[in-house]
Amino acid sequence: MVKVGVVGYGVIGQRLADGVARQKDMELVGVADVAPTLAIRALKEKGMPYNLYLAVPDNAKAFEELNIPVSGTLEELVQKVDVILDATSAGVGAKNKELYAKYNKKAIFQGGEKNSVADVFFHGYANYEKGLGKQFLKLTSCNTTGLIRSVDCLDRLYGIEKVAITIVRRVADPGDYHRGLTNALQVDKAPSHQAVDLMTIMPHIEATGILIHTPVTHGHIITVVAKGKKKITKEMALEAFKTHDRIRVVRLADGFLGNASLFRYARDLGNPRGDMYEIAVWEESIVESGDDIMYAINIPQEAVTIPETMDAVRACMEMETDRLKAVAETNKYLGLGKWK
Amino acid sequence: MVKVGVVGYGVIGQRLADGVARQKDMELVGVADVAPTLAIRALKEKGMPYNLYLAVPDNAKAFEELNIPVSGTLEELVQKVDVILDATSAGVGAKNKELYAKYNKKAIFQGGEKNSVADVFFHGYANYEKGLGKQFLKLTSCNTTGLIRSVDCLDRLYGIEKVAITIVRRVADPGDYHRGLTNALQVDKAPSHQAVDLMTIMPHIEATGILIHTPVTHGHIITVVAKGKKKITKEMALEAFKTHDRIRVVRLADGFLGNASLFRYARDLGNPRGDMYEIAVWEESIVESGDDIMYAINIPQEAVTIPETMDAVRACMEMETDRLKAVAETNKYLGLGKWK
Amino acid sequence: MVKVGVVGYGVIGQRLADGVARQKDMELVGVADVAPTLAIRALKEKGMPYNLYLAVPDNAKAFEELNIPVSGTLEELVQKVDVILDATSAGVGAKNKELYAKYNKKAIFQGGEKNSVADVFFHGYANYEKGLGKQFLKLTSCNTTGLIRSVDCLDRLYGIEKVAITIVRRVADPGDYHRGLTNALQVDKAPSHQAVDLMTIMPHIEATGILIHTPVTHGHIITVVAKGKKKITKEMALEAFKTHDRIRVVRLADGFLGNASLFRYARDLGNPRGDMYEIAVWEESIVESGDDIMYAINIPQEAVTIPETMDAVRACMEMETDRLKAVAETNKYLGLGKWK
Amino acid sequence: MVKVGVVGYGVIGQRLADGVARQKDMELVGVADVAPTLAIRALKEKGMPYNLYLAVPDNAKAFEELNIPVSGTLEELVQKVDVILDATSAGVGAKNKELYAKYNKKAIFQGGEKNSVADVFFHGYANYEKGLGKQFLKLTSCNTTGLIRSVDCLDRLYGIEKVAITIVRRVADPGDYHRGLTNALQVDKAPSHQAVDLMTIMPHIEATGILIHTPVTHGHIITVVAKGKKKITKEMALEAFKTHDRIRVVRLADGFLGNASLFRYARDLGNPRGDMYEIAVWEESIVESGDDIMYAINIPQEAVTIPETMDAVRACMEMETDRLKAVAETNKYLGLGKWK
Repeated sequence: MVKVGVVGYGVIGQRLADGVARQKDMELVGVADVAPTLAIRALKEKGMPYNLYLAVPDNAKAFEELNIPVSGTLEELVQKVDVILDATSAGVGAKNKELYAKYNKKAIFQGGEKNSVADVFFHGYANYEKGLGKQFLKLTSCNTTGLIRSVDCLDRLYGIEKVAITIVRRVADPGDYHRGLTNALQVDKAPSHQAVDLMTIMPHIEATGILIHTPVTHGHIITVVAKGKKKITKEMALEAFKTHDRIRVVRLADGFLGNASLFRYARDLGNPRGDMYEIAVWEESIVESGDDIMYAINIPQEAVTIPETMDAVRACMEMETDRLKAVAETNKYLGLGKWK
Repeated sequence: MVKVGVVGYGVIGQRLADGVARQKDMELVGVADVAPTLAIRALKEKGMPYNLYLAVPDNAKAFEELNIPVSGTLEELVQKVDVILDATSAGVGAKNKELYAKYNKKAIFQGGEKNSVADVFFHGYANYEKGLGKQFLKLTSCNTTGLIRSVDCLDRLYGIEKVAITIVRRVADPGDYHRGLTNALQVDKAPSHQAVDLMTIMPHIEATGILIHTPVTHGHIITVVAKGKKKITKEMALEAFKTHDRIRVVRLADGFLGNASLFRYARDLGNPRGDMYEIAVWEESIVESGDDIMYAINIPQEAVTIPETMDAVRACMEMETDRLKAVAETNKYLGLGKWK
Repeated sequence: MVKVGVVGYGVIGQRLADGVARQKDMELVGVADVAPTLAIRALKEKGMPYNLYLAVPDNAKAFEELNIPVSGTLEELVQKVDVILDATSAGVGAKNKELYAKYNKKAIFQGGEKNSVADVFFHGYANYEKGLGKQFLKLTSCNTTGLIRSVDCLDRLYGIEKVAITIVRRVADPGDYHRGLTNALQVDKAPSHQAVDLMTIMPHIEATGILIHTPVTHGHIITVVAKGKKKITKEMALEAFKTHDRIRVVRLADGFLGNASLFRYARDLGNPRGDMYEIAVWEESIVESGDDIMYAINIPQEAVTIPETMDAVRACMEMETDRLKAVAETNKYLGLGKWK
Repeated sequence: MVKVGVVGYGVIGQRLADGVARQKDMELVGVADVAPTLAIRALKEKGMPYNLYLAVPDNAKAFEELNIPVSGTLEELVQKVDVILDATSAGVGAKNKELYAKYNKKAIFQGGEKNSVADVFFHGYANYEKGLGKQFLKLTSCNTTGLIRSVDCLDRLYGIEKVAITIVRRVADPGDYHRGLTNALQVDKAPSHQAVDLMTIMPHIEATGILIHTPVTHGHIITVVAKGKKKITKEMALEAFKTHDRIRVVRLADGFLGNASLFRYARDLGNPRGDMYEIAVWEESIVESGDDIMYAINIPQEAVTIPETMDAVRACMEMETDRLKAVAETNKYLGLGKWK
């Protein structure tokens, strides 16, 4: 049993903890955070299914006053585990890294950190082998993780040379009050970092793209124009996507009208928090553009990176050296693909 | 065991079914709907925890093609149960009533139907006794249900003479694509039906109010200006609300900044669908206005009527004749108040 | 002076009337509508700068009660003019066409009507010559009009073979209450009609695309991936766009962050209604994708078709047979390009 | 002719400049700002109808590079004028005050500054006399200005003792990208500052209230529950509001469905920027609540304080000592009330 700690119990951290708890070959030693946030209060109300460690020991009194049991400090948590999943705010992870290095522990950072924090920029499906045995890994961000799933899926079957993406980005998570956008679309400087990141992970592909922020909270939508080494037809693309355990092919005709339908469906499935690990591709969005193939995918931003982070644990701890076996293990424990 | 059927498996129907399934003294015989909606597809993907009946037998083929097992027709379901919870679209319930009457079954309609569909317009806390043994009950709508909880709470302790409410209404549920509002507030003709409905349930109180639609999906917020028979101080109001098992007193200072914080908290609690049965009152919103008391409450529109509907089953089936024992039974099975 | 009537005084009709009033070689005889809408009430409050005709004479009393002066019926207006600009709701134009035909008048329909209503599907820059002398013209819709401006601009200079577009569509106009979308992105069946329409106007180009509805009101944003006959560099694209009198090249660095910045800028310019006739292209959005060129444009949906409709009057009335002279005449009267 | 300068050429400053330019007894000497914002670029594109002064002389080069003519420095502007309208960001006005004091000039601050910046907290209708001859005035904020208009209107006719308000607040102006809220309602600590401010201006009235932020951009809506010295009927309230030149009585039945209808109507009127100086009260929102009267008003946040700021110039410069004559003068030049 690989021992895992989660540092930062926010939107991503909570979901990482839940993800680890579902892996039968991992043990969640505990989670760490700095203050009694709403997420920590919810943990308390649920009866403390996870042990809690203090990232800032001086804040202990605030937890005491709320009768929230604390199992120790972050430094103690680090010593107890084999690998840390760092889901702190951007920049904090780089600082925490010193602590992880001090005890010679492995750590996996999320997409908000700079690439330089890690030895390898990682995606479970696209470059699993590069993560094997490494000490510090950084996951791709939510959009990039989902995008690469779809591009890697086509690339391994048919070969992809070039992609041009348009990211229609949700601007805040449900419950965010510290950021937002009201009745406006916002354009970012191109190329978007997601296209650049894709090229870092898949250097044989040329990528560029434009990102547009939109005032919604449930899932990014990305359109992809991909140029194959040979022509990829709609049927070929559809067939490829249907084989993938982390991609759901959905249909407008069935009522999946947009990102909000997928969120509602995940809630109705009874998934904790209404989360979905899978990206979705709309069957009716797939069209041929000359020799290129074009399609639209949905990225459930809160949970999409969880499976690839579980893959990262398997890679850095060398729990499994074979890429396909590793992702299959993650998929099995998270129930991915069983809906097919 | 009282046998219950749910007709209409949409936003409310799904939650009614889940609610019934948690009542240890009720048996959910099945749910009925007309077509393989996303909610039905989710039921299938979950492995059919509830039996499904066809409201429109001619649509059987659509279900067959998707391998969705069907247990019979709506008419068969009606015959098997003691009481039907009708959560169909507004107007359909009135038509279905003929079927319920044909088999002399009891039925409980949701707030979308006209009052005339039922023998009594019902609220578990405010007029439980009126529902005892009746054949047809109609629940108050989501806003009215939550509003009455708070007003009844103050009324029973201190006496309320008059309320003036402002309803800041969410305009669609998450996942709705058939209605919406974009960058606009919409004013309704006053008085709002919720004020009128409150007077029907609590005829000793004078009520009026203004309703404003806002482009959000997670929870209505209502401000209430209430005139007590004697002056109600902030402390008195707070004390009253804290005793109620279906009212959460929350604080801005703790991070509950608005309706979206409550939705997120319910998701983080692990509640199915991120639902919350309780209304919330913001402690920092309670202010005295001369001799009146003013406060703001949050109404989680998707789930708030579920507890009072369970109460309605208890009333019409005469499972319990005492108001407080009946609501306590519902609260126990739904886990209400245990967070205190 | 060509005599012009505008039928339908809504979002588009009001702007068509204003546009005609600014053409020194056209005379606005009057506008027609069915009822005293807010737009008609505003016309009255402004002192009736335009004569009003009744599309439904039976409604005369409603206008009388509000002391709104009426100059006659729609049928009378038709007889007084050379050409009608029909901006009625989708489908009404086809019915009105019989009246225009009865008096052998020319008419120009907006994008909501079916193509079959007209002899030619028209765009001022792309196929001006096809409209010369025709009786019935139909304008491209707002998105298609703006899209074609940019594609035609590149095509005439460098040659374009293929485009793949992503339309990030505003879902309602400011003030719309009859449609909307709340916290959701909606995907349409691909290819979008705008891509198909582009191919109708520019049959030598292959086009496809995906459309995504977003809950905002100020301006669609379209990303275009265009394949040139030869490679088009960022500099070449920028140079081309800068020459066009109906395209503004704007910069994120200057504060034009998205569609809402452009709306605000048009308001600050003092443009009536805060309208803008020009599309905008973001300089920082232009990127090369292999041999393709990619860029993002803003479409101010309420006013963008006005210039091309003025071109259409010139074409069908044969006021000018030369394409470039015709659009230059429209641009001069509307003040287009003078900001350069 | 009273000489006026406007410092800060943003949302409010631009409208103050336009407002001053319409007063036949005032001269707009110029406007000052720190950088070539979009508003300054629009001023340039319009041909510099107003002279521009530099608040930060070191930034001169940025203006030169854009060929924006500059008439001098802020310090020079201050010396040329009798009174400054300071519309800078919150906190800057307090700093600027030193400069205004140095040259012994009068200055009027907007609602963002602290009350302590000024000698008197001012509202044209409610306490005009208090501003007479004062050196430093501070205007009430947009919500408070509009709210007081309506309460003062009732108070002068019938006497008001107490108000309880619910502010449904727009969260950003059109074009704002630095703040926003997405799919959330946010509750503020009660009582809202607007209620407190009302009591400062009208100390004989007891006021409290709750403020809720909503994700829209066009106009706050406030509901008011007001207790009169005697009972105020719906008819009495309606009659009072109809006499006021800065209050429009509008009807849902006519199509004024909410804040967005009013914005659209102002655009269709041809008002610059689609601005409206008047608040609106919905006729169908006025209801009696026991002896209290309840109603809903719309506050066009970008322009509502302009008339009262013009009043403030008249007061501090003692251009007119009679309250009603002063506001009538402002109304005449701004065209207020002529729509009746």
